[in-house]
Amino acid sequence: MLLTILGNSAGGPYHGRPFTAQVLQVEQHLFLIDCGEGTQMQLFHCGVRFDRCNQIFISHLHGDHVFGLMGIITNWCLKKRTAPLQIFSPPGVRELVESTCRVCQVRIPYPIEFVEVNTERSTRVFENNQVEVWTVPLAHRVPTTGWLFREKIKLRNMRADKIGEYSLHYSLIPGIKAGNDLHLPDGRVIPNAELTTPPPASRSYAYCSDTAPSDSVAEVVRQVDLLYHEATFTSEHTEEAAISWHSTAEQAASIAARAHAGRLLIGHFSGRYKNTEQLLAEAKCIFENTDIAEAGMCVEV
Amino acid sequence: MLLTILGNSAGGPYHGRPFTAQVLQVEQHLFLIDCGEGTQMQLFHCGVRFDRCNQIFISHLHGDHVFGLMGIITNWCLKKRTAPLQIFSPPGVRELVESTCRVCQVRIPYPIEFVEVNTERSTRVFENNQVEVWTVPLAHRVPTTGWLFREKIKLRNMRADKIGEYSLHYSLIPGIKAGNDLHLPDGRVIPNAELTTPPPASRSYAYCSDTAPSDSVAEVVRQVDLLYHEATFTSEHTEEAAISWHSTAEQAASIAARAHAGRLLIGHFSGRYKNTEQLLAEAKCIFENTDIAEAGMCVEV
Repeated sequence: MLLTILGNSAGGPYHGRPFTAQVLQVEQHLFLIDCGEGTQMQLFHCGVRFDRCNQIFISHLHGDHVFGLMGIITNWCLKKRTAPLQIFSPPGVRELVESTCRVCQVRIPYPIEFVEVNTERSTRVFENNQVEVWTVPLAHRVPTTGWLFREKIKLRNMRADKIGEYSLHYSLIPGIKAGNDLHLPDGRVIPNAELTTPPPASRSYAYCSDTAPSDSVAEVVRQVDLLYHEATFTSEHTEEAAISWHSTAEQAASIAARAHAGRLLIGHFSGRYKNTEQLLAEAKCIFENTDIAEAGMCVEV
Repeated sequence: MLLTILGNSAGGPYHGRPFTAQVLQVEQHLFLIDCGEGTQMQLFHCGVRFDRCNQIFISHLHGDHVFGLMGIITNWCLKKRTAPLQIFSPPGVRELVESTCRVCQVRIPYPIEFVEVNTERSTRVFENNQVEVWTVPLAHRVPTTGWLFREKIKLRNMRADKIGEYSLHYSLIPGIKAGNDLHLPDGRVIPNAELTTPPPASRSYAYCSDTAPSDSVAEVVRQVDLLYHEATFTSEHTEEAAISWHSTAEQAASIAARAHAGRLLIGHFSGRYKNTEQLLAEAKCIFENTDIAEAGMCVEV
């Protein structure tokens, strides 16, 4: 899993910080997460070959998370994309896209499936061979969901020496990698543990923006390897965070600690903070393994 | 008149070129012309204090000219703007804004007047004390208009020596600057030409994008001081320009020549041109006083 941060700003594009958007690469698949204004520029700027993206996940319908979507959709129109696209989101994105297309006379030459997701309880909304994607219900002013990406359990590693030792036909290997024991012609059964070594670890990434701090978020993302959690404010503005259904850096870190996350990235910073030192310092007091989600950074999960 | 180019790209944000948008300052008034995705970022980047803008002029409803509009509108919402806003455009912008506001639950705290303009014949759509704005019907795939900004005739300059010579009361000066003769108590009449010098020249600026080359455009913008004309293609792609209702750099220059414009800026470049040298060279062959409308440049008209 490779995460690329495209932007981290809340509300306005202050201090040169682009709006919120991220790309998660899992094997050969690219998932676009949120899509603030300017996302297509950031994709170019970061060198992401986003034509390979077939799934977009929108957390909620506030402009700083969705106003870049039509730009991406029309960019693909100009490139004569034919591959189907899925857009996962709370209700409303279909209407947004369709009304814009109607007014602007955009004809989309590829199919789009709009998947309206449950923002009330965590639900699996997507899976392929490598990964499952679950919603993470968030606490915001409008229906909002985070996204939890969990790699599936990977195939065990076949021990090369055992292939020779038992003269294994290649057709048996996928089954053994999947966990089967080996039944020999002479009746012996070789247990899988002797033939394989454990698979590589399955990684997980959770994206939680925008939200007030929520115990149920910590529960859903429990033991996630990498957690992105919004941290719009410093502790000085805790009251403003509560009023606007956002989190402080401390609160984001508390969620990471309660979830026993491996690592925390914070973002979605208010324009009142020209630099992010104070936000990082406050988070690190509670959860040491925290970093700023800087636009342009790539993080291996 | 001071023109700031915010972007010059057609279709996609290729080679780091931002989408089309411009700001024209006339005295203390700021007019925003077109509003591609990322316009608010470019306004910040160029240091334009755009909160003072009360009029936006949209040429047509293609995404590369209008997808930044909602970002500007919501930016002003967050700043609790109260000043009325006028948006001049072909039909459709009201529906675009209202449907987006409905889906995204945006409540705009300031009044917006949507002025749908005539894209078939040149019409005056706005005036204040300093300037008039006229539509410039363009030839594109959807209803499209350029914009012609003409400063009004300015007040003549009062000669300081004449104030003393005739012991002029200050209340008479505005009338004299407006062209009145001076009637002295002894019956003499001092002609205005003796009391004043000619006013500063009234300047004009025309914005023409997107369009196929059009004789009627040259007619409407006749003798404009500064003409911005789209030049999406080089002459190598003249056929593609015709099919897509765009212009080549040569064609843009021909319009400038036919209009007897003072100076030409070309922009709206296709992503196929990594640099703009060929476009500029082709235009200059026909109209020498041509420049590239580079993002970030300021041009005094």
